[in-house]
Amino acid sequence: MIPVRLIATGKAVPSRSVTSAEIDLEFGHPPGYTLQKSGVQSRFVAAPDQSQSQLGAAALQDALQHANLQPSDIDLLIGACAVPEQALPNTACFIALHAGLPPGTPAFDVNASCLSFMAAFRVAASMLADGGYRRIAIVSSDLASRGVDWREPESSMIFGDGAAAVIVERGDGSSGIRAYKMATYPEGRHHCEIRGGGTERNPRQGSVPDDYLFHMDGKGVFRLAVKVMPEFLDQLMAESGVGLDQVDVVVPHQASPLGLAHAARILDVPDAKIVKIFETHGNQVAASLPTALHEAVRSGRAMPGQRLLMMGTAAGLTVGGMIVDL
Amino acid sequence: MIPVRLIATGKAVPSRSVTSAEIDLEFGHPPGYTLQKSGVQSRFVAAPDQSQSQLGAAALQDALQHANLQPSDIDLLIGACAVPEQALPNTACFIALHAGLPPGTPAFDVNASCLSFMAAFRVAASMLADGGYRRIAIVSSDLASRGVDWREPESSMIFGDGAAAVIVERGDGSSGIRAYKMATYPEGRHHCEIRGGGTERNPRQGSVPDDYLFHMDGKGVFRLAVKVMPEFLDQLMAESGVGLDQVDVVVPHQASPLGLAHAARILDVPDAKIVKIFETHGNQVAASLPTALHEAVRSGRAMPGQRLLMMGTAAGLTVGGMIVDL
Repeated sequence: MIPVRLIATGKAVPSRSVTSAEIDLEFGHPPGYTLQKSGVQSRFVAAPDQSQSQLGAAALQDALQHANLQPSDIDLLIGACAVPEQALPNTACFIALHAGLPPGTPAFDVNASCLSFMAAFRVAASMLADGGYRRIAIVSSDLASRGVDWREPESSMIFGDGAAAVIVERGDGSSGIRAYKMATYPEGRHHCEIRGGGTERNPRQGSVPDDYLFHMDGKGVFRLAVKVMPEFLDQLMAESGVGLDQVDVVVPHQASPLGLAHAARILDVPDAKIVKIFETHGNQVAASLPTALHEAVRSGRAMPGQRLLMMGTAAGLTVGGMIVDL
Repeated sequence: MIPVRLIATGKAVPSRSVTSAEIDLEFGHPPGYTLQKSGVQSRFVAAPDQSQSQLGAAALQDALQHANLQPSDIDLLIGACAVPEQALPNTACFIALHAGLPPGTPAFDVNASCLSFMAAFRVAASMLADGGYRRIAIVSSDLASRGVDWREPESSMIFGDGAAAVIVERGDGSSGIRAYKMATYPEGRHHCEIRGGGTERNPRQGSVPDDYLFHMDGKGVFRLAVKVMPEFLDQLMAESGVGLDQVDVVVPHQASPLGLAHAARILDVPDAKIVKIFETHGNQVAASLPTALHEAVRSGRAMPGQRLLMMGTAAGLTVGGMIVDL
């Protein structure tokens, strides 16, 4: 087990929440269409003048406050977003500024698209275990609304903006990561993507506005995930040395109703154990998993002494799972 | 000391090399102008149909070949570029594909802009030390040519395209990271940047072509780096428990002639110890540091048993330093 202790979680969402009924009105859909298509009642949408890093910083400040910590108590900030705020520099630099971290606090990004938080949590545990740092903050923030293509109902209606933060320490060894597994299948690299914004498509290299919008082949993602996930989870559980019946809370990436239903089907755990915030948040990209974790922790569903399973799929295609003894 | 052993390094550059004389001709500068302004004799420039991840994969294949390893010998791929290939998914997914890594090999990115390689090396050492992985590949690849603004002589002439890869194992404990330090000063976040490509400026949110070009306030970077670097290096050396006279090779980020000269000035080591590839490569962004490391290793300047100092500055502004016993 890699020792790590969850000290605090935090969350931030934009002030504006948009219901599916409002989207029906705006796009001339029949009443009930967006809810039925997306499974989302309402999602948060950032104002044009709110930045991804400001939202991320607000989540970190929420976590700090809740743990009675100061910004100066953070040794290292790991940004764990899926899409960056700028192509350069890394997003954690902007989050560090808005969160008021003391100048000189190191800040880098870990990116495994929608599973950035899980990868960053694993990285943080390693860097705490070897004594490199004492207290690490992980912040995931994504503004899906800046890139959804409203001509694609499937990929536009399910998303929401948001941010979440987690603060971790090494702990005394009684809590930690019991098992962790991540697997990337590049055959799915174009199933979920924003082609523009990097070195491949930009005004210099040639690009069209559509390149900067998110595109998803939902069927392709689902087909690949369904193919690899069952064996992947078996291997994760085997590595953990415990059974699913010994898992208290399941925090899945809130990808889509289809994805959540598939997770529930292959997991064989009571539905009450699975944390679901999709209806009220939508898919918040990389912020989805830590926001669901935050809701589980703040509501008392996930408590010290309990065992947690986090799992999900990410653009790439990457699948990931982690068993944490809290 | 965090145990880690350098198993192999690799490098890749585009086939086309552009001399400063050619740039003089193309932009109507007087003969010698570009060389005098930039300090670069020639830099490599990728063809429009070559991708960042293809170049990164070529560097990884070079490292694999040199170590007599197969793609299946890699447990984890860490992409360590400054600018991504696409806004989504992470660049390591594309590198994994082109390098022929077996489907399922986990692949995520670490981003500390120009110091991504150093941060990824530190992360890899941690993840090897706790037994999570047996052999990790770190790949840095950047195509600066896709974003330089030729109206800004200072920031356009100094860059070159390139990629480098490093393969690391845990080793037997005789080699490793003796000291590591990174510090981020967000006051410099706009000194080196590409504003577009993420959630802040894009066609949805509003952007102009100039937003996708690299802009640099060279004086601002230099002023901030000069202010923080001396004390930073003192702290790094103090942490290492050794003196600069016990360092065999210095591999600095090949930022600029001014940056390299400043490093040489504050370091107080014989100039022959400092690896410089700037004249023949330019500043290769995140690929710069590992390419210089590769040149030091392949040429026999850095050998097992020797002590290495890596250091540099990065957009953010981030400064970093690491002492590695090879």
